[in-house]
Amino acid sequence: MALLTALAVGAGGAAGAVARYAVGLSVGRRAVDTGLVNVFGSLLFGVAIGADFGGAPAVAVTVGFCGAFTTFSSFAVETVRLAEDGQRLAAAGNAVGTLAAALLAVFLGIALGAAL
Amino acid sequence: MALLTALAVGAGGAAGAVARYAVGLSVGRRAVDTGLVNVFGSLLFGVAIGADFGGAPAVAVTVGFCGAFTTFSSFAVETVRLAEDGQRLAAAGNAVGTLAAALLAVFLGIALGAAL
Repeated sequence: MALLTALAVGAGGAAGAVARYAVGLSVGRRAVDTGLVNVFGSLLFGVAIGADFGGAPAVAVTVGFCGAFTTFSSFAVETVRLAEDGQRLAAAGNAVGTLAAALLAVFLGIALGAAL
Repeated sequence: MALLTALAVGAGGAAGAVARYAVGLSVGRRAVDTGLVNVFGSLLFGVAIGADFGGAPAVAVTVGFCGAFTTFSSFAVETVRLAEDGQRLAAAGNAVGTLAAALLAVFLGIALGAAL
C-alpha cells in the first residue's frame, strides 16, 4: 500500500470516527445516532462516486472518512441490545430500516454527485 | 467531549480504517473483504463488551477501532454495485448474509469476552 494513500485513509478514518462519536454524543439516543451516520455516510460515499474525482483525496473521503464515519459493528451491537431488551420490533426495524435507507442513500448520492 | 476520549477514538479510528484498507488490498474481492471486516469487527466489539473493561482504552477499541474497521457505507455501495451489475442474488446474499453473520458474531463475541 502506498504510504500517501495509507496516510490519507488514516487521516480520513480518524476524522470519520471522531465525527461519528460527536454525532453519538449529540443525538444521545441508541441506534438512532448510528442509523443517522450510516445513512448520511452512505449518501456522501455515493456523492463521491458520482462526482468521480480521484487520487488520494477521493480515497481519504470514501475509504477513510465515509468508511470510518459509518459503522457496521455498532449497528450490529445496538440491534442485538434492542433485541435483548425485548424490543424485537425496534431491533428488526433498525436492521431493515438502516439497510433500506443506506441503499437508497447510495443511489441518491450517486445521482447527486453526477449532477455536480 | 473529553479531549482524551476524542483522541482515543481518533487514534483507534485511524488504525481501524487503515486495517480495513489493508484487508481490502489483501483480499481484493469486492464485497467479500467488506463482509470479512464487518463480521470480524462485530466479533471484536462483542468481545470488548463481554470482557467489560472501561475508560479510554475501551472507547478506543470499540467506538474507535471496531467502529472504523467496520463500515456501512462501503457495504451499501458494494451491494448497490452488485445489483447494478445484474448480480441481484449476490447483492441480496451480501446484504442478508453480512447482517446475519454480524449479529451472530456480536452474540459469540459477548460470550467469548465474558469467558476471558
